[in-house]
Formats: sequence, structure tokens, C-alpha cells
Amino acid sequence: MTSDATASAPHNHWVLTFVCPDAPGIVHAISGAIVEASGNITESQQFSSADTGRFFMRLQVQAPTDQQQFEAAITPVAERFELDWQLDRVGRPLRTLVLASTAAHCVNDLLFRQRAGQLPVEIPLVLSNHGSLRELAAFYGVPFESQSVTDAASKALFERRILEAVEEHDIELVVLARYMQILSPELCEKLAGRAINIHHSFLPGFKGANPYRQAHARGVKLIGATAHFVTSDLDEGPIIEQNVVRVDHAQSPAELVAIGQDEESRTLTQAVKWFAEDRVLLDGARTIIFR
Amino acid sequence: MTSDATASAPHNHWVLTFVCPDAPGIVHAISGAIVEASGNITESQQFSSADTGRFFMRLQVQAPTDQQQFEAAITPVAERFELDWQLDRVGRPLRTLVLASTAAHCVNDLLFRQRAGQLPVEIPLVLSNHGSLRELAAFYGVPFESQSVTDAASKALFERRILEAVEEHDIELVVLARYMQILSPELCEKLAGRAINIHHSFLPGFKGANPYRQAHARGVKLIGATAHFVTSDLDEGPIIEQNVVRVDHAQSPAELVAIGQDEESRTLTQAVKWFAEDRVLLDGARTIIFR
Amino acid sequence: MTSDATASAPHNHWVLTFVCPDAPGIVHAISGAIVEASGNITESQQFSSADTGRFFMRLQVQAPTDQQQFEAAITPVAERFELDWQLDRVGRPLRTLVLASTAAHCVNDLLFRQRAGQLPVEIPLVLSNHGSLRELAAFYGVPFESQSVTDAASKALFERRILEAVEEHDIELVVLARYMQILSPELCEKLAGRAINIHHSFLPGFKGANPYRQAHARGVKLIGATAHFVTSDLDEGPIIEQNVVRVDHAQSPAELVAIGQDEESRTLTQAVKWFAEDRVLLDGARTIIFR
Amino acid sequence: MTSDATASAPHNHWVLTFVCPDAPGIVHAISGAIVEASGNITESQQFSSADTGRFFMRLQVQAPTDQQQFEAAITPVAERFELDWQLDRVGRPLRTLVLASTAAHCVNDLLFRQRAGQLPVEIPLVLSNHGSLRELAAFYGVPFESQSVTDAASKALFERRILEAVEEHDIELVVLARYMQILSPELCEKLAGRAINIHHSFLPGFKGANPYRQAHARGVKLIGATAHFVTSDLDEGPIIEQNVVRVDHAQSPAELVAIGQDEESRTLTQAVKWFAEDRVLLDGARTIIFR
Repeated sequence: MTSDATASAPHNHWVLTFVCPDAPGIVHAISGAIVEASGNITESQQFSSADTGRFFMRLQVQAPTDQQQFEAAITPVAERFELDWQLDRVGRPLRTLVLASTAAHCVNDLLFRQRAGQLPVEIPLVLSNHGSLRELAAFYGVPFESQSVTDAASKALFERRILEAVEEHDIELVVLARYMQILSPELCEKLAGRAINIHHSFLPGFKGANPYRQAHARGVKLIGATAHFVTSDLDEGPIIEQNVVRVDHAQSPAELVAIGQDEESRTLTQAVKWFAEDRVLLDGARTIIFR
Repeated sequence: MTSDATASAPHNHWVLTFVCPDAPGIVHAISGAIVEASGNITESQQFSSADTGRFFMRLQVQAPTDQQQFEAAITPVAERFELDWQLDRVGRPLRTLVLASTAAHCVNDLLFRQRAGQLPVEIPLVLSNHGSLRELAAFYGVPFESQSVTDAASKALFERRILEAVEEHDIELVVLARYMQILSPELCEKLAGRAINIHHSFLPGFKGANPYRQAHARGVKLIGATAHFVTSDLDEGPIIEQNVVRVDHAQSPAELVAIGQDEESRTLTQAVKWFAEDRVLLDGARTIIFR
Repeated sequence: MTSDATASAPHNHWVLTFVCPDAPGIVHAISGAIVEASGNITESQQFSSADTGRFFMRLQVQAPTDQQQFEAAITPVAERFELDWQLDRVGRPLRTLVLASTAAHCVNDLLFRQRAGQLPVEIPLVLSNHGSLRELAAFYGVPFESQSVTDAASKALFERRILEAVEEHDIELVVLARYMQILSPELCEKLAGRAINIHHSFLPGFKGANPYRQAHARGVKLIGATAHFVTSDLDEGPIIEQNVVRVDHAQSPAELVAIGQDEESRTLTQAVKWFAEDRVLLDGARTIIFR
Repeated sequence: MTSDATASAPHNHWVLTFVCPDAPGIVHAISGAIVEASGNITESQQFSSADTGRFFMRLQVQAPTDQQQFEAAITPVAERFELDWQLDRVGRPLRTLVLASTAAHCVNDLLFRQRAGQLPVEIPLVLSNHGSLRELAAFYGVPFESQSVTDAASKALFERRILEAVEEHDIELVVLARYMQILSPELCEKLAGRAINIHHSFLPGFKGANPYRQAHARGVKLIGATAHFVTSDLDEGPIIEQNVVRVDHAQSPAELVAIGQDEESRTLTQAVKWFAEDRVLLDGARTIIFR
């Protein structure tokens, strides 16, 4: 276990994350495994949860090994300490499915940053219940499909298409970029821990529909946005990121909508970025974010 | 009606606020009355509420008149347009009663800034249900009384003492500076529009008790504080000011309490300052803040 | 002079701005002219500059007149008080020329928001010294021209093309959206008060080249961006808007560049929006922003 | 080297910080030493500086040893890797000398938070070149001395008294809490790395005197405060923390002073808190802050 003294090629830059019951000796053991794989630790973060008694760690390691060798070194430690672990290459683009409706701002931000190299994802498909973002997706060279949702039957078909697309493209993350349909409990269950939604309020305030109208009526002085994991308990999934912006009495509900869009875009994009970089871990109903 | 060209003595600096049904000709009429009083407008803000159809205005005016003369000039306009109006001298200290319990941070901030000349209030009394802030009040030369609240009877006595103090000291504003008792509906009614509370969360999230514990459990990424008017509908009074601060997964509920105290102090002090400067007007359940 | 009681068609919504020597009676006189034009004031802001002795005002007025009638009502007041004034329709798109080089983020933000209806500008041309943003402009349906700048002669040609384009398209605002060439003093002079630049630092810190590298070397804890009017005194023009974002020791200069881009985009777009809404007035080396 | 599984008494909670040339094997070696001392790592942060090739680490460790035993375990590693290291108890109050002049806000914030248990320092003396804060210090029970500075001779006497007090009270940190005298190069040298100043601007903008007046003249839209280490190169010492607050054209230089005071207090207090918790390390002209 060493520090960042030896430069390695980027393709030998690994990110290791794990969760396990807290116990003495974990870090010592894992550092031993990394030494065995000739690895240098370049970034390291840890957290012991007093709420759940679990230990969380994220390591970036430069190591001149292939994935199989690295995994072989880690496996004995993982078994001994009951690690729930994951090894990935730093910067590998995450296969991401984007769900959209008519609002362009979140989709535009994701696609623009993906192309600008600021977001380590690849987006094989934007799937929408409206056709209005087709041109936007085309500009960024991203395949686009739309399929109308008008009743229970068409909603079921749309959800079936989501699952097919997830299968077809080996999707690792589903992003609801102002997708305006509520997912069924079954779909929430199937996508648990790999679907992120943006809610246009500062949760837990103003759950449900028309949050900006609610915010106006209540006369709040800051409005916000919340990116969270999708669960069947609507607007109650673990929170990943939140931002707020100051408003005042003079702004109408319609103006709050326009002002809030910036917070929505940047909050969702930030959450997707952290997730794609393996910086988001779950501790019960809360998230651990290793920024 | 003129701009700020002629310097006047500060004691001739007036603040005029009013609310009325929105109608053509209001501003023209009021500006005429100011011209009649030989006044110069140095600050002017207005707002037409689409929600309630009411018109709000705040003016600062330099005028070489006494209060009676100025009021005489305004009265005809006030009657014609049904103004609910108020004329005061800029900078006149507002007579303020502070209610406290054991927490020192909000009281300290109010007293420090009052003495530093940053807060145009005079505080004839700090009234507490605990004795622990006696020394702090004494340092700032502010009278302090404590009276224990342990049951319904002692609570009623305490509330009676509040009303006596309001009467005795001509109190214009009651500030609940982390006063940890719920006011009775009768008292809320009597203090309507002139009592400000600080709630230690970003309302409407985390109403009620232990908001920091709730915030920790929910895993929010920002915590906040809300200064609002006291109403009998707990934590639902019109919001005056809110602030938030970023937190992360590593902070315990106890640490959130410590972090949140700064937001509480500055949010409450800001609300008191605006109120004392006649910058806070009520539009139904919302506040108009002429910053 | 009345408040916002009578709804008018949006095409009768006017914005009047003026600057003049501070003197008694200005507001009274201008309000009289508005009454004469049967106008209702819907927004009003004023400022008396203690630095320069000048008085600034911005009014939004709903009035059932045409421009000529409105101007006729104002002219006598304007002459009497030496107003430097401007009357425009609220929401009229400002004819805006965008200068660019290779960086896409600012241009993308301007074009996206213009199309989303969030920015009251029309952009007849993006003019660049590189060809790399051609596809982006095409996506938004905005004409694009590029012309290489490699030496004094080609620079002079480029500047001549700027002036031609200004003439040809009746340009009211020139936006340097990370345009990486220094304008000649002559061009600065010709575009005085109608060219806005985005500087990628929190001015007056880190003037000149490579501000993010400078910020890294100095170890600042916040980096920022500054939108300012272009003057021949480089990076010294009147500041319109600034924003900052927190950074820490771990970020390399390259990472600061990526982080700073968001601040650059939103700061420039905000400045352009305020300018297009006639909210930016000049008071010597400072700007008055009627937000 | 283990995680935070075994609770220990707080008096066995250690903080270890070190800096050394970056090299393979450091973390492995230091973790071995901690295992040897039966320690559990509860907090761990590291940074490799690409600028200086140095490696920085901060560890919190629960270990049932006394200081001598712990140091004995670490010493071989420290010698092998040329560590510049420090071992301390978590929460031990840092002996802090406060230098002041007439401004109360920073001193009040430090003393209030120290007494509230939010700032792990003990303050054996406030030393001022004015007598005006005597009562404030007395309220908090902190010894206070004043000694007038009017010329070179009295300034030399004052600086001699500083050094005596540092000696006399085993001072570990000198805080210039709006102390309005420039320290001599000799004194800066003697206090290098253990004296923190608050500058009332967002450095590197507005160095030197009257920064708020400069900020007003330049028309900046945000003003700020900077806490930095004192060096003989005035306002150029390594930056520890910075904050800003939004202002607008309407605020006079005097109002900027009042607004800025809050940023000054919280920025200085934050810097002192991090320093007292051994979270501030020096990397040339930059600071590493292990928040």
C-alpha cells in the first residue's frame, strides 16, 4: 500500500469500492491486497456509519495488473470481511439510459457535458413519451425513441420497452431527466439502486405535483432541486444531491419554474457524475457521497 | 416628488409603508402628497400582488416637517385609496421583547449587533423560562427575567407575564430566540403580525420537534433555518427569511445542531432587522420583503 | 402615474430608463408624463449616486399608446431635466452578435437559452476565429462565419468584419463568449457600452492570461468569473456580474478550468439577460443593475 | 490498521499528521505502526502534491496507548520516510494569543464560540493596541492587556510584548483578529506558520488599505474576506479560507464595511478551528485543508 509516487498509464487506474460490517483490521487487510497487486493508492476515503454499523471505503489505485489479477488479490479479503465490493477502471464510461418527456434543459445538460468530456457516461438511447426532443438528441448523435403514454396499457408497454432497452444495451444507470411519468412499483424494484430522478423541489418540502406552485403559495425564500434514487415510495428515495437558489415575493410560479430549471440541470448532472465515478454508496435510506 | 438631491438632517428622514387595493392613480396621488410636504424620495419600492389584488409600497422620504404635518398631507390620499399605512422615522429603534430558553447563540447575536449599532432595536427585556442566559444579558446591560415553565399553570403565568411586558414596555416586536415553548393560540392571536420565531429547519421540511435528527435520518445534503411570523398553526406562519448550509453524510445529528446554529442566528437577526426597518409586509400567507 | 391595476396587451408594455443630474422634482415630472400617456407603472427602480451626483431610473409601464405618442409625452420632461433616456418595448429581442473562438460552453448556453425563450435576444450571427463551433450554431439555426486570425493583418480584417456585421445586422450588443483575441483600442472605442466580455476569474484578481493557473498557484479557495463591459483597459471595464464556486487544494489547474466553465456560462448569460432587459446602466466605472 | 469498530475513551483519540517526500510504501508502513500501537483509524485523508512532490496525510486514531508508546511505534517509519510529523490528542485546546485593535466582531466571535465549546482553543490573553475591548474580554473571563502603539518605538515595545506573551503562555497560535498594525518582518519570521490574519477582501483582489473602499470604486458584485498565514510579504501569505457575500450598486463603502464584518468573523473563526484541529498543512505557498 503506497502513495501516488509512480505514474502509471491511465488504463491501469482502478477504482475499488466496498461496504462491509465494521470490524478491526479491514483497512490493513485491503491495503495488503493492494500491495500484493503492486498497486499505489492515489485517492482514499472511508466512513463508519454509526447508524448501521457498516464500513464504507472508496480507493483509487494505480496498478500494473489486469482485472482478473487484481480481483484475485482482493477476493480472500472480501470473503474474510464479507465485503460487498466492486472493481472498475477509473473513467470507464457508464452505460446510461436517459428517460425524458418534453422538457429539454436536463437532457441538454447531460448530452452537452457528455460530449464535452465532462461526464463519464455513454448514452446509447434517449427514450421519451414525447417526440419533442428528437432533434436535440440527433444533434448530439444519440439514438432517440419515443412512444406515447396515454393510459395503463401504453404505460405498461413503455415500461416493458425500458426493461428491454436496459437489457439490450447493458444499461448500468437509468436517468429520469424530467420524465413526467411515475414508474410502477415493479419497475422501481427492478431498477433499485440504479435509477436516479430529479425532483423539482428541495425535498422533503413540496413532494408531489406542481412543487413550484406550492413553493409560491407558501412564500419560501429559496427554491431547490433534489436528485435521488428512484424507489416505489414516491419522492422518498435516498437523496444524492440538492441545490437551492434565492427567490423573492415578486416571482410568479411561472418564473420560479424558469429559475428552478438551472438548479434541476446542475443537480441531476452532478448526481449522475458522482454515480458514474463510483462515488455514491447506500447506507439504508441515506447516501454516502465520497466527493 | 423629487429625488435625493437635497440633504436633510437624519431626524427628518421618514419611512412610509402602505398596502391598499390595487387601483390606478395611487402612486401619482401619494407622490403629490409628498411634494406637498416638501419631501424628497430617497428610496422607493412597490409590488402589485397578482394573488390578492393588493398594492404594496415602501418609501423613504427626506422632508423638513414634523410627523403631524406629514400625516396631515397623507391622510386625504389614504382615505381616498383605503391605504393601510404607517409613517415612521428612519432608524428609530423598535421596542423589542426577546423570549429565550437555554440556547445562547441567537440571543447573543441579537444583543451583540444591537450594541454594535447594526440592528435598530432597543431591548427593554429578555424573558426566559430558564436562568442560564442571565449573565449574557447583564453583560449587554439588558434587563433579564426568568420564570420556570413546568406545567399548564406555570405556562399560563409565563404567557401572562409576556403580555404584561408587552404592555409595560410598549413592545412592537416579540422575538422567539430559540424559545422552546409553544405559544397558546390566544397568545398567537394577540401577537399576530408582531412575533417572529426561528425554526431550525428549512421549512416546510422537518416541521415539529428535532428537525436536525429528522434531517439526518432523511439524509438531506443541505440544512437550514427559517424565520417566520408566529401563528397558531405551528411552523406554518408566513416566512420572512431562510438560509441553508451544505452538510454531508459524515455529520451526526449533534454536529448538524452545531452547524445549524450559525444559520439560525443570522436568519433570525436578518428577519428582525428587516422588520425593524419596516421592510416586511404581509400578503396573505406570504411576506413582501422590500430589501 | 398609477399602479398595475389595468391589464394591457403585452405589446403595450414599455420599459423606460434614464440617467440625469440629480435634482428635485424629477420623479414627479416623469410620473406626470406617464399619467398623460395613460400609463400604469408596473415596475419601478431608482438610484441616486453619491459618487457622481447622477440620478438613475428604470420604469416598466403599461400604456395604450404607440412609441411616438409616448415619446412626445416624455420629451418635455427629458429636456427640462437633461435626461439621457431610452424607451423600448418589454421583451423585444435585442439584436446580438456573438464572438467566439473554440470553447463551446458559453456559446451553447446562450444559444440554448435563446431558443428556450429564456433570453430576449436574437442572434443573427456567430463570428469566430475558428471553425469548430460551426455545427453547434447550425443545430440552433444560427448563421456562423469563421475567419482565421494569425497575425496583425488578419486580425485587422477580422475586426473590420465585426464592424461590418454590426452595421449589417443593426447589432445592439456584441458578446465575447470566450473570444480569445484582445480587441484593438479603436474597436473598443467604437463598441463602448455595447460589448460584454466574460473573464474567467473573479476580477480584479488574476487579470490577464491563464487565470486558473494563477488561482491554483495562489491557492485560493474560491474561483469565479466576471462579466464586464469591454474597454481598451483590458479586464478593467465596468463589472456587470460575478459568481464564485468553492474549490480545494486537490484540484489541478485543468480541473479548475472545467469547474470554472459553469460559472463563466451562467455569469455571461445573466449579464446578457440583464442588458437585454435594459437593467444595466453605467455610473462612471461602475454599473447600476436594476435586477 | 483497522476501522472504527472498537469504541475507546476520548482521551485515547489521537490525531497524526505528516508531510514527506512522496514514495511507494508510506501508507502501508504507517498503517503497520498504527496496528502495532493497537490503533483504530477513525478518519483518514491524504494528498499527493503534483506541484511539490510531497505527500500529506492526516489520521485520527483511537489507540489505548500513551503518547510515548505511540511515538515509539511511529518513529522508525518517520525516520525511514523522512516524515515531518506531529502527534496530538483530538480536541486538546490549542493555546492561542489574540491580537486586537478596536473592532469587536472577530474577537467576539472567537470568544463566544470558544466558550460555547465550538472552538478547541484556550485563550490566555487578548493583547490590543487599544483599550476598547477590555470589557468584552472581561465578560468572557479572558485576561486583556492594552499597550498603545503610536510610533516606531512603541511598536517595537508592543512586538516585544507579543513575543514575551508567546513565550510566557506557550502560545501555539497567534490570531490577528482585525489587529490594525503591520507586523515587522522579524516578527513575521518568528511566528511563521503559527500566525493567522484576517484580511477584509477576497484576496488577491484589493490588497492593502481600505479594501471596501477599493471594492466600491471598482463596482464588484461580491465582497469577501480571506484568512491567511502571516508572512512578511503583506497580504500574500498562504490562504486558509475565503468567503464572499453578494452586494450591489446601492451600498456605500460604509455599508460594505458592515456587511463584510460577518464574512470576516466566520472566515477567521473557521480558519482558527481547522488549524486547532490540525487540518491545515503547508505545501509551499498553498495550504492543504483536510476538512
